Amino acid sequence: MSIINSQFDPPITAVRRIVAMAIAEDLEPNADVTSNLLDIECQTRVNLNARQSGILAGSLCFNETFYQIDPTVEVNFLFKDGDRFNDGQTIATIAGNFSKVLTAERTALNFLSHLSGVATLTDLYCQRAKRGNDKVRVLDTRKTTPGLRALEKAAVRAGGGVNHRGNLSEAVLIKDNHLGGIAVGEAVSIARLRWPGKMIEVECDNLEQVQSAVDSNATVVMLDNMNFEDILSSVDLVKKYNETSSAKILVEVSGGVSLDTIEKLASSKCDLISVGAITHSAQIVDFGLDLIG
Amino acid sequence: MSIINSQFDPPITAVRRIVAMAIAEDLEPNADVTSNLLDIECQTRVNLNARQSGILAGSLCFNETFYQIDPTVEVNFLFKDGDRFNDGQTIATIAGNFSKVLTAERTALNFLSHLSGVATLTDLYCQRAKRGNDKVRVLDTRKTTPGLRALEKAAVRAGGGVNHRGNLSEAVLIKDNHLGGIAVGEAVSIARLRWPGKMIEVECDNLEQVQSAVDSNATVVMLDNMNFEDILSSVDLVKKYNETSSAKILVEVSGGVSLDTIEKLASSKCDLISVGAITHSAQIVDFGLDLIG
Amino acid sequence: MSIINSQFDPPITAVRRIVAMAIAEDLEPNADVTSNLLDIECQTRVNLNARQSGILAGSLCFNETFYQIDPTVEVNFLFKDGDRFNDGQTIATIAGNFSKVLTAERTALNFLSHLSGVATLTDLYCQRAKRGNDKVRVLDTRKTTPGLRALEKAAVRAGGGVNHRGNLSEAVLIKDNHLGGIAVGEAVSIARLRWPGKMIEVECDNLEQVQSAVDSNATVVMLDNMNFEDILSSVDLVKKYNETSSAKILVEVSGGVSLDTIEKLASSKCDLISVGAITHSAQIVDFGLDLIG
Amino acid sequence: MSIINSQFDPPITAVRRIVAMAIAEDLEPNADVTSNLLDIECQTRVNLNARQSGILAGSLCFNETFYQIDPTVEVNFLFKDGDRFNDGQTIATIAGNFSKVLTAERTALNFLSHLSGVATLTDLYCQRAKRGNDKVRVLDTRKTTPGLRALEKAAVRAGGGVNHRGNLSEAVLIKDNHLGGIAVGEAVSIARLRWPGKMIEVECDNLEQVQSAVDSNATVVMLDNMNFEDILSSVDLVKKYNETSSAKILVEVSGGVSLDTIEKLASSKCDLISVGAITHSAQIVDFGLDLIG
Amino acid sequence: MSIINSQFDPPITAVRRIVAMAIAEDLEPNADVTSNLLDIECQTRVNLNARQSGILAGSLCFNETFYQIDPTVEVNFLFKDGDRFNDGQTIATIAGNFSKVLTAERTALNFLSHLSGVATLTDLYCQRAKRGNDKVRVLDTRKTTPGLRALEKAAVRAGGGVNHRGNLSEAVLIKDNHLGGIAVGEAVSIARLRWPGKMIEVECDNLEQVQSAVDSNATVVMLDNMNFEDILSSVDLVKKYNETSSAKILVEVSGGVSLDTIEKLASSKCDLISVGAITHSAQIVDFGLDLIG
Amino acid sequence: MSIINSQFDPPITAVRRIVAMAIAEDLEPNADVTSNLLDIECQTRVNLNARQSGILAGSLCFNETFYQIDPTVEVNFLFKDGDRFNDGQTIATIAGNFSKVLTAERTALNFLSHLSGVATLTDLYCQRAKRGNDKVRVLDTRKTTPGLRALEKAAVRAGGGVNHRGNLSEAVLIKDNHLGGIAVGEAVSIARLRWPGKMIEVECDNLEQVQSAVDSNATVVMLDNMNFEDILSSVDLVKKYNETSSAKILVEVSGGVSLDTIEKLASSKCDLISVGAITHSAQIVDFGLDLIG
Repeated sequence: MSIINSQFDPPITAVRRIVAMAIAEDLEPNADVTSNLLDIECQTRVNLNARQSGILAGSLCFNETFYQIDPTVEVNFLFKDGDRFNDGQTIATIAGNFSKVLTAERTALNFLSHLSGVATLTDLYCQRAKRGNDKVRVLDTRKTTPGLRALEKAAVRAGGGVNHRGNLSEAVLIKDNHLGGIAVGEAVSIARLRWPGKMIEVECDNLEQVQSAVDSNATVVMLDNMNFEDILSSVDLVKKYNETSSAKILVEVSGGVSLDTIEKLASSKCDLISVGAITHSAQIVDFGLDLIG
Repeated sequence: MSIINSQFDPPITAVRRIVAMAIAEDLEPNADVTSNLLDIECQTRVNLNARQSGILAGSLCFNETFYQIDPTVEVNFLFKDGDRFNDGQTIATIAGNFSKVLTAERTALNFLSHLSGVATLTDLYCQRAKRGNDKVRVLDTRKTTPGLRALEKAAVRAGGGVNHRGNLSEAVLIKDNHLGGIAVGEAVSIARLRWPGKMIEVECDNLEQVQSAVDSNATVVMLDNMNFEDILSSVDLVKKYNETSSAKILVEVSGGVSLDTIEKLASSKCDLISVGAITHSAQIVDFGLDLIG
Repeated sequence: MSIINSQFDPPITAVRRIVAMAIAEDLEPNADVTSNLLDIECQTRVNLNARQSGILAGSLCFNETFYQIDPTVEVNFLFKDGDRFNDGQTIATIAGNFSKVLTAERTALNFLSHLSGVATLTDLYCQRAKRGNDKVRVLDTRKTTPGLRALEKAAVRAGGGVNHRGNLSEAVLIKDNHLGGIAVGEAVSIARLRWPGKMIEVECDNLEQVQSAVDSNATVVMLDNMNFEDILSSVDLVKKYNETSSAKILVEVSGGVSLDTIEKLASSKCDLISVGAITHSAQIVDFGLDLIG
Repeated sequence: MSIINSQFDPPITAVRRIVAMAIAEDLEPNADVTSNLLDIECQTRVNLNARQSGILAGSLCFNETFYQIDPTVEVNFLFKDGDRFNDGQTIATIAGNFSKVLTAERTALNFLSHLSGVATLTDLYCQRAKRGNDKVRVLDTRKTTPGLRALEKAAVRAGGGVNHRGNLSEAVLIKDNHLGGIAVGEAVSIARLRWPGKMIEVECDNLEQVQSAVDSNATVVMLDNMNFEDILSSVDLVKKYNETSSAKILVEVSGGVSLDTIEKLASSKCDLISVGAITHSAQIVDFGLDLIG
Repeated sequence: MSIINSQFDPPITAVRRIVAMAIAEDLEPNADVTSNLLDIECQTRVNLNARQSGILAGSLCFNETFYQIDPTVEVNFLFKDGDRFNDGQTIATIAGNFSKVLTAERTALNFLSHLSGVATLTDLYCQRAKRGNDKVRVLDTRKTTPGLRALEKAAVRAGGGVNHRGNLSEAVLIKDNHLGGIAVGEAVSIARLRWPGKMIEVECDNLEQVQSAVDSNATVVMLDNMNFEDILSSVDLVKKYNETSSAKILVEVSGGVSLDTIEKLASSKCDLISVGAITHSAQIVDFGLDLIG
Repeated sequence: MSIINSQFDPPITAVRRIVAMAIAEDLEPNADVTSNLLDIECQTRVNLNARQSGILAGSLCFNETFYQIDPTVEVNFLFKDGDRFNDGQTIATIAGNFSKVLTAERTALNFLSHLSGVATLTDLYCQRAKRGNDKVRVLDTRKTTPGLRALEKAAVRAGGGVNHRGNLSEAVLIKDNHLGGIAVGEAVSIARLRWPGKMIEVECDNLEQVQSAVDSNATVVMLDNMNFEDILSSVDLVKKYNETSSAKILVEVSGGVSLDTIEKLASSKCDLISVGAITHSAQIVDFGLDLIG
């Protein structure tokens, strides 16, 4: 089995655990009642082909699915996570027991299709955003599919996006409703004291809050559901501050971003645009297994 | 905590297990570094409000998330799974420790948004299909999100769809590539012998195969990626057979069905139309928590 | 390690998970305090021999136990699941580290003995039943050992039996106490609407109920604890219906079936006889490991 | 929910874990497709009745099954583990949601029937043994059902038996094939040095080995598959030693013990008789749920 | 059961999972063979008393242990995590079934003793460090006990320390051996591009590396095993940079820090001192349960 | 990968399970964000070197960590568990993908350092004890790190210590507060009846209790927190009894034993001294990975 190491690989522990769950939910209690009806010793060679273009993600999960069902099946990937492929291209070759290949097919494809879907949609958002500003980066959110966060965040990276905090413990994100009457600056100070070096982000609804966040020297200022003029003013405010500052405060635009709006939002010269849709509403990329010869 | 029993409830074992995984991936290692910055004894009352219309699914998971994070938080649902709601309606009320409510918010919403998304898209497909034939039913597939099948299949039911086989062991689905030269009728006979009473479905690419499947008295004949004329002829063939038969063979149309094509496909008078998109490519339904007063 | 693929193999996920549990319960906390007392590098060759005749089941679990304890131990099976063996025959050969072989021995035998016991008892019921009617088939039930259902259902298949529903979600089984005043026909219609293609079975205590079940075109009619005359009348009723019907309704006899009664019950020409005892009360088949030479 | 504490309770961790597995295997993926067909709010009261006499075991598992499926169902036990009951007696009362009671019924009964079966068979072996010698005790073995050892060993205690070592790490059991040419006495000395205070048992095939085991002051001498005369001589040998010794070496008779042979074996005045059958080949005790009124 | 919410609480998911493991390893297979020897219905009241002074951590785990063994046992804490207590003070009161209290005692104490040990040693390092510089903070490391990181990091916070990265994915820590000939500045740039807002730390062995790290505007500069003069020069270098910078680069001193050296190291005016010993080599704090009256 | 079998190996099931947990807690959600910044195909060769002398334990866990992260990394151990090594010696060699070696490094070292710390402290206690009495053995206790008991007990054996009961079900340990007015002798009799052959230990606070324990022929008499004169008298009492007894009752000294007191305690000629500190308060042994050449 040959899988190509990629900088976008998710943690192997998550891959093994989630693949085992997915196989169990498809096989138990009585295994595959169709594929073992006939000759169970028959061998096969099939190709994994793309049925549409996209960005690859999920190859580790695809491999692991075949490996857990039958370690003697050979899977060889011709592309690696993060690679762009076209409709019709062969992504991998598979050789081994035919019955076992049929058993593994759907679960392996479910991983590859979903995760490549995330990567491909991320890539699309990135392309649109870069039309507005070629430095801007697309961020994911915590709006991920329950249980699959580690896999989906890796797919976002494969698609050219960057990851916002991985979970509630990785970064501080202060919203109005955390404050209870306390000033933003004070909240940031408390956070900085408790969590030195950690990213501290402040969610802002208006320019005054942006000014407070900048004054508190937050790592990231998030402009939440602002209108475009306020976004422009906010970006301007932060960029002016950054001109004379060694710390470059990042500006993130957030809230209901779509493929239609991202180019304009990017043109504000903000640094980051977070898009929930790339993980919570990505459509799959279609792949299929085809017999060779 | 009051949750309304629903005929669409997923198995409680899956709910508990997957919610525990989802909370762990959002909380570990260092818990919520933001919500406990300030007053950790503060109480709150919030409403779960719909930000768009749809069909509810996932209320058990939403509840369980709050329960696992803090069993003293009170969640009361005003709707139950399968109910239709409108933009702006209050779906549930929540009361309890503010810090814990903030911690649970995103994970609970991820379940509700995704599963209501599946239910709502299923409902949309059902509505479109019924324009073509008000008896037709929309089927899901095994193209589900890895690890979430039990939850997504329940959401399909909440959305008015019906479930195809739950896994590889629940039903026999004979495709060409299972046969290896053996006739369909023989394969069906072998399957019937091994698995008495089990649903046996035959995937057909052309009318000859449909005839064979009917002759073998399969439970379901699947018309896979057929053109519309062949679908009409196939449905006709099966219906004619059914007229004089006590066994009513079901006809399923399958393959790349979209919201644009389902009405016409349904007008063929087929019984079932299977749609992978309702589980693999549903967009979320947007909900939010709003402070009361 | 060489294991022969069998059409009766249980799902590999269940095998791995349950074997890991069984080894853990036998080894923790302090490993095998006896087998490592002496020379821990000693190698051995042993045979797995049958101490009585029977039908093999559980070879995957036997293998997996050795594999998880020491992947360098070689296990080669000479029989496969479903094969008949005689007292004294060598079923498999094992070669490897002596200390590890001793550690694995009991757990591996516990699997093989219990599952071959299920297969062998199933075979015995099948033989007795066929004396009464050589077309009849022996069904298992949901009366399985908690946690081992997937393994025991596979063993039933190895023994020549067939599987009733695997769990509560695989088939509808309507009993009187589900009805609450609603007619059987209505209940079957509701079930058929919700679960197209799924096996629907109706449990009947008397001929009127059998008539209702036949009228509702159920997939299977279960005769529950009926006396033999009623069974004969019921089978007659259904067979008459089937003569002019393409749908062949199956008749299952159920309730306290024993080795003494199954031949007579089978002579009723029913299609299926379900026997709880083959999974809940099977005695083990005795195997042992013997040093070679 | 009222469960009566018993000295025979298995560890609660095993109960929770195995019950969760058993429910999952019966409910996933699509929950109970029958019990929720009709009125899902209907309440019920049922009795758990014995269909035959026996010794109760497994009440904790029975309770836990209902509790995990629906914590609002009330289960009240009138007997506790270890109690003797008669055919027809009510063992517990159950009140709650009818649909959930039906869902839990089979899994809860599977635990109770199997574990009471183990307890009841153990009791039967004890009774037979006591006819031969009213001081003798019946021991279980490691021949338990994979994954259920903790539950089955508790059931053995409920049935009046005593537990042999719980696993490979709890006691040293030296057999010929552990020795590799080393004398029994030396092996016992090594074991005693490594594991001070631990039970050390020596398996003996003949009188010479018994003498060696006694000389090494083993905790238990196991007479493995000896003929009755050798058993008598061996017991005599050990008892003579014990007369002048403060350490009372125990004599265990082992190997193919059956209900037919145990009385005679017990009459040898041995201390312990180990019986694999009580865990590996116990038949279930039949219980049923009956509607009240 | 009353447990006081604390800002230092570890994630509840980790608490539940690890407590379940710890109870299982102490109870299985045969439960507590001593505590149920005698009257199993006896009730008791005991106090949890400190046998030495310290800082409390682990109260959630202590509670959860009793809760999982017997939810009817009442545990009431008089102190909360992070509180200082003295030798002899009563930390909590416990009331309930005596047998269950005895069963839970050791496991509950193992958690409390170990985690309070971590908190207390952290506190001691903090006190010593503050003698040298009252602004300095003590950091933990990834040198934690396998499987207990979430619990130990919470205990560090309870002891007044702060947490370094929770795992390999939370922050970038660039060491010489990651570079392979690439300049530090370039590596930091790559990291910043991939992981916007994330803490980027550079490990430095000499002043030149410190200068490079400062030039690359790293979040934290780690002085690894430097001599004191180089530490002083490095701190000076960074502080000078910070004077004219809005970004305040943090300086961490690391490498073999002990209670003897931390005061002097702190006097360098560094911001952070990381100490592996507080998690990998903390001694326990002694607690005991004493009968009341 | 070459690992040397050792008689001190912990159960492989515990090794696999705990290593998987430890890797997951260090890698999820986003894998190693540093080690894959640069060339992910680079190969390396490193040595595992001791930074201080000690006794090796944990080699199976060290290996398993590398294996689970990347099975192609080669780890070859030059020492085995239980071996003594000196500062600077090479313990193992490692070759493989550099990025993966860096990822595995800390988790693998955490196991080896902690477990070798336990073994090394055990060895130190053994040495000190043997100055007072070269026959005395050092026992561990149940005061182990939650979740790691199987690993720590193996490390104690590697360090020359012996294991007290592994858990609450392995041995009976009667303390005053178990008795509730019942005499020690009676309690021992009950225990012996229920658990034939099992080690029965009696905890004694004074000579009278010792006399009772001896009279009841307990397996072990534990002298709990006695002053030295009472210890001498107690040992004397038991030894006198043993002179004329074939059963050699063991005497264990327990309670607050330290490196300062163990020699004197051992000089009492007791058989066993139990030391909680060897598992609950061991400091790590320092190891490091060094690049070769």
